[in-house]
Amino acid sequence: MGMVGGGTGSFIGDVHRKAAAIDGLIVLVCGAFSSSAERAKESGKALFLPENRCYGSFEEMILSEKELPEGERMDFIAITTPNHLHFLPAKFALENGFHVVCDKPMTLNIQEAKELIAVVEATGLLFALTHNYTGHPMVRQAKAMVANGDLGAIRKVQVQYLQGWMATAVEKTANKQAAWRTDPSRSGLGGALGDIGTHAENLTEYITGLKIRELAADLGRFGEGRILDDDGNILLRMENGAKGTLSFSQIAAGEENNLAIRVYGEKGSLEWHQENPNELVTRWIDQPKKVFTPNGNGLYPEAAAVSRIPAGHPEGYLEAFATVYRSFAQHLNAVLKGEAIKDPGYPNVYDGLRGLQFITAAVQSDRNNAAWTKIE
Amino acid sequence: MGMVGGGTGSFIGDVHRKAAAIDGLIVLVCGAFSSSAERAKESGKALFLPENRCYGSFEEMILSEKELPEGERMDFIAITTPNHLHFLPAKFALENGFHVVCDKPMTLNIQEAKELIAVVEATGLLFALTHNYTGHPMVRQAKAMVANGDLGAIRKVQVQYLQGWMATAVEKTANKQAAWRTDPSRSGLGGALGDIGTHAENLTEYITGLKIRELAADLGRFGEGRILDDDGNILLRMENGAKGTLSFSQIAAGEENNLAIRVYGEKGSLEWHQENPNELVTRWIDQPKKVFTPNGNGLYPEAAAVSRIPAGHPEGYLEAFATVYRSFAQHLNAVLKGEAIKDPGYPNVYDGLRGLQFITAAVQSDRNNAAWTKIE
Amino acid sequence: MGMVGGGTGSFIGDVHRKAAAIDGLIVLVCGAFSSSAERAKESGKALFLPENRCYGSFEEMILSEKELPEGERMDFIAITTPNHLHFLPAKFALENGFHVVCDKPMTLNIQEAKELIAVVEATGLLFALTHNYTGHPMVRQAKAMVANGDLGAIRKVQVQYLQGWMATAVEKTANKQAAWRTDPSRSGLGGALGDIGTHAENLTEYITGLKIRELAADLGRFGEGRILDDDGNILLRMENGAKGTLSFSQIAAGEENNLAIRVYGEKGSLEWHQENPNELVTRWIDQPKKVFTPNGNGLYPEAAAVSRIPAGHPEGYLEAFATVYRSFAQHLNAVLKGEAIKDPGYPNVYDGLRGLQFITAAVQSDRNNAAWTKIE
Amino acid sequence: MGMVGGGTGSFIGDVHRKAAAIDGLIVLVCGAFSSSAERAKESGKALFLPENRCYGSFEEMILSEKELPEGERMDFIAITTPNHLHFLPAKFALENGFHVVCDKPMTLNIQEAKELIAVVEATGLLFALTHNYTGHPMVRQAKAMVANGDLGAIRKVQVQYLQGWMATAVEKTANKQAAWRTDPSRSGLGGALGDIGTHAENLTEYITGLKIRELAADLGRFGEGRILDDDGNILLRMENGAKGTLSFSQIAAGEENNLAIRVYGEKGSLEWHQENPNELVTRWIDQPKKVFTPNGNGLYPEAAAVSRIPAGHPEGYLEAFATVYRSFAQHLNAVLKGEAIKDPGYPNVYDGLRGLQFITAAVQSDRNNAAWTKIE
Repeated sequence: MGMVGGGTGSFIGDVHRKAAAIDGLIVLVCGAFSSSAERAKESGKALFLPENRCYGSFEEMILSEKELPEGERMDFIAITTPNHLHFLPAKFALENGFHVVCDKPMTLNIQEAKELIAVVEATGLLFALTHNYTGHPMVRQAKAMVANGDLGAIRKVQVQYLQGWMATAVEKTANKQAAWRTDPSRSGLGGALGDIGTHAENLTEYITGLKIRELAADLGRFGEGRILDDDGNILLRMENGAKGTLSFSQIAAGEENNLAIRVYGEKGSLEWHQENPNELVTRWIDQPKKVFTPNGNGLYPEAAAVSRIPAGHPEGYLEAFATVYRSFAQHLNAVLKGEAIKDPGYPNVYDGLRGLQFITAAVQSDRNNAAWTKIE
Repeated sequence: MGMVGGGTGSFIGDVHRKAAAIDGLIVLVCGAFSSSAERAKESGKALFLPENRCYGSFEEMILSEKELPEGERMDFIAITTPNHLHFLPAKFALENGFHVVCDKPMTLNIQEAKELIAVVEATGLLFALTHNYTGHPMVRQAKAMVANGDLGAIRKVQVQYLQGWMATAVEKTANKQAAWRTDPSRSGLGGALGDIGTHAENLTEYITGLKIRELAADLGRFGEGRILDDDGNILLRMENGAKGTLSFSQIAAGEENNLAIRVYGEKGSLEWHQENPNELVTRWIDQPKKVFTPNGNGLYPEAAAVSRIPAGHPEGYLEAFATVYRSFAQHLNAVLKGEAIKDPGYPNVYDGLRGLQFITAAVQSDRNNAAWTKIE
Repeated sequence: MGMVGGGTGSFIGDVHRKAAAIDGLIVLVCGAFSSSAERAKESGKALFLPENRCYGSFEEMILSEKELPEGERMDFIAITTPNHLHFLPAKFALENGFHVVCDKPMTLNIQEAKELIAVVEATGLLFALTHNYTGHPMVRQAKAMVANGDLGAIRKVQVQYLQGWMATAVEKTANKQAAWRTDPSRSGLGGALGDIGTHAENLTEYITGLKIRELAADLGRFGEGRILDDDGNILLRMENGAKGTLSFSQIAAGEENNLAIRVYGEKGSLEWHQENPNELVTRWIDQPKKVFTPNGNGLYPEAAAVSRIPAGHPEGYLEAFATVYRSFAQHLNAVLKGEAIKDPGYPNVYDGLRGLQFITAAVQSDRNNAAWTKIE
Repeated sequence: MGMVGGGTGSFIGDVHRKAAAIDGLIVLVCGAFSSSAERAKESGKALFLPENRCYGSFEEMILSEKELPEGERMDFIAITTPNHLHFLPAKFALENGFHVVCDKPMTLNIQEAKELIAVVEATGLLFALTHNYTGHPMVRQAKAMVANGDLGAIRKVQVQYLQGWMATAVEKTANKQAAWRTDPSRSGLGGALGDIGTHAENLTEYITGLKIRELAADLGRFGEGRILDDDGNILLRMENGAKGTLSFSQIAAGEENNLAIRVYGEKGSLEWHQENPNELVTRWIDQPKKVFTPNGNGLYPEAAAVSRIPAGHPEGYLEAFATVYRSFAQHLNAVLKGEAIKDPGYPNVYDGLRGLQFITAAVQSDRNNAAWTKIE
């Protein structure tokens, strides 16, 4: 693995590294950690990388690694930069024969997303999008329960992703995380919408197996001087006639990382909270509430497959993230060995497009005073 | 107290009686429990009432009790009938000199609500609307925290009232509760909207002290053949610029009585769940999460005033309901003694109008494909 | 009902009155609310009682009421005084033909308890002990699950009753509640042991249907100068070979009223918390965790029988207390009509003896450095 | 790192590897994964190790690695075998100049533990014991709060470690985990006592900073034919006069990994649950309940220091385990550079002795019918 972005002090770059390391299948061999050559070298050194594989730019890294003998050169790149720096390295890597793991939202806009799809399809290389929350065992169990019809036809969804860390004007302090997220040139059309709203959208479609058909979005800009949204409330209509709400915020004062979803079917419902990820609460019209746990009783194989440790030992954010990396690595191994793999199970370039379409539709709906807007 | 409706087998009539009894301030002395004279007598007998005070109609009760000497006749009536039978007995009682406690929604429509306000204002008699959830100590604490500015200016509200008991076609069985709720002639414009959506609306305005300025409502009719809504998702815009969502359902399979609210201000937020009513969770931008309990540490006097028992002994639905009755009884005592009382603290005829305006606006918005619609 | 004790400002007297009132089956007709004649009158007046039925002593009340015609005189007395004033009024009432509801612990010692049993058996009158926590629907469900063998043979019990209100020397302030509880002449052999330890003991035997065979008790006296225990940790051995712990405290700083129990059988286990009484959590060796709720799905009839309101509307301390009163009232009605009743379902004089035997054994064990001590 | 034990299919070996990998500071370079040479090779291959560094025994590994040049040979060994195979490899590694990370309980008995202390002291090499639960940020916060006097003097402790996976006779199936745990020759004096009771003991002393002075233990053997305990209830007396209970079980049917502790001081108390490790609940005599979270508001530096990711992103079992490895690696780095390090912060050989003393005292007490027994 070669990393783009994620220099010392980066939040998400460190997460990618830890997630990739957990299962012992992936080794970081090089990186272009920073646009500053000096910081790039320093970051590499702190990661015990040889100096000659700490590159000053992603182009340099990709071109140099390409020259290395097979078995020595990196197999894929991991992109952990702000949103505006996803598309170019992803495209360049693919065009030079490297597989890609990329953070979300995938690109700045639909146009870029479609172009990336074209490159992936043309090259036949692998592309994983780190919608990490899909890696939780209880999210897998939720998806399997819906897919197996346990809940009956889905009627209602409520999903939310609430953070409070931007309740004050942190972007005016030295907070680099806040600075790029509030800057349209680096973040794209959406602020909180792209940053966390897309996680809520992805989780909804992932668990229910249903597309959002149309939405009505009322976005907020509560932080003084903010151009991009920092809050939003959205009505959803799913392709099968189900309805719902999607709410997100980075000004929900006091919230830490409150991603949660409830899905209601004809026969029962389920509820999952990211901050307490090792419980899946299910409620039924004719049975008592049942609570599932990773590696606990009564799971579908899809859920059991992604638990690493015995029941009652909590897994968290890094493990779920690691599951995306692990299934990518397993797919890559299979491909390298010339084996077929059925469903690699990680979010891909089409999920990435879906996220951009969601962002675009929500922004457009908001501009039209929350008028119903179709996705794509 | 004389009761209208609430014969044997009624859910809400029994609740009113228990709630009125708890504090030892109110005695049931007569009733018109059923439109069937026979059932009315039987119900009265089961409640240990003398036969001559079990009336066959509310008109008979009101006119007969009026003839009794002061001190013996009932002081007020409690109306516990389906929605379409609130207005007439309320009006008739007021016009004949009796105070009124009435279940919600107050009337079938705005016109009736305004007429009732006129009668209340003309007679100067007392009128309480049993928005019972306002009686919980932790709801009082929430309201006081907002009013005292602890949270700063309110920016976001999320409120929901989710039940699942109508997930199947219970109205086609012998379920009387479901039958009238799905019948527009008895329930009014709204189904679940009027039955429980109004509780969510009332709780929102009660705690935040803010009016909902406009809404965009997407109502659902998931039960086969249902004319009235059984589900709804609503975007809210509050008078001060805050935004939010209000969701309700009676087809949220597996939910029992999940009324919950979260209110986000500039400095902190609060969260309350009706099914676990003795906790008020608060989160802050600069302090750890704090959880308040009835009669626990750190409460405002408004919350402490309505706790009946020491901290850690849970109070529930009946106690909150009883608090509405108790404050009504205390107001009535004060009035009978010629004393003034500052804020009697129970929901009144204006809250009732507000509920009807909310129902009306939501139905109108829904008919216009969730177009923004002002309340009033 | 005539009340002994429970004058203005009393905690438990007020609880008894509210609990007796909720179901509309019991009316307070007289009282001997205080040993001060003046306070007794004032208390009665505040409760809307006629002056001539506010008595200066329990003897006066019992003898006077006895002279009143049937149908007018009280049917039973409710004893809500400190521990040392339970035995005499109970005995005197029974000897004069009145049934008795009595707070716990029933008497000051085993000797009194046995004497009371003799009187109850000799008179054939009814005697209810207000072990109120047995009235919770989820406690009834727990008992029924064990009785029906759902858990298999019981192997382990953990029970606790933790309060923190005596963490500081409140008995040296004007706190009347603390004053008598720390005074051996009024409280008996046990401090917290008698006050709340007995609830833990009673709950354990009630739910498991098993007697505690022997115990090893290590009592604490953490409050400076306290003669009676304010904390205790006890090892339990049940009659069937199950083992367990029982812990109680009134100096567990920060705890409000944390009574909780976990019972483990061969096939599954259950957990109940008084502060969140409307959930019964069950865990299984081969199924996911199931959570039961009052009037929710999957209950045994014994649990459903004591829920007053639809699922999801919380019931609390007063309702559970009221269930003891209601079943006593129903038994009394049956007896007055000459009907037999199978299991009246309320704690009785034998449970009262059991509590005293538990207190006595625990104090004796503690004096012997926690040596194993048989109960009785 | 070279690993002893932990071949394919091992639970704890895999945990050690993942935990060591997360932070990118430690690389697995060799192993003696199994006593079967063939399985050892296979395990090594699955871990991408070169064949010549997959050894057939720990002796071979230690002696061979010793011959490798510095920088290439392993720096330390990680011992992940059953209890009876801790002492010998640890001693042999130390005597040959390798540092040691060892699973708990450290040895089979006190004698071995003292001998190991002597070797550690004689060689001056590092020794870490993987009492992994000490690595949780909220456990660090708990320890810091007690140390800073926030709770006042400690009065009461309640700790438990409850599992249910041995509720049935799993040791008679192919369950290797159960087989050695129920075998005195491989497990030592204690069964569940050594396996999980020691975690409860360690957590108690770690958080409170107090030694357990004496205990009274009642152990159970509920599984048919079991020689070693599978359940236990213990009374505790701490060195400062505090009292408490410690309960553990592997036959607590339905429990997964319920390690939990409550500590009560004069001014407040704290509560932590391993299954929900990212919350520390604190209660106070004069303030509302406060709940702390990793990287959340109001933490002591000791807690903040061990959180890897922003607040609200849950960390779990592996991360806490990794914290032990990380602090060991940091200590090792410092030592290799000749730097001093103040408190390396990981459990050590003295904690290991403490565990053995606890096991020994508990077994002795149990043999004397739960007589009070001093630790050491």
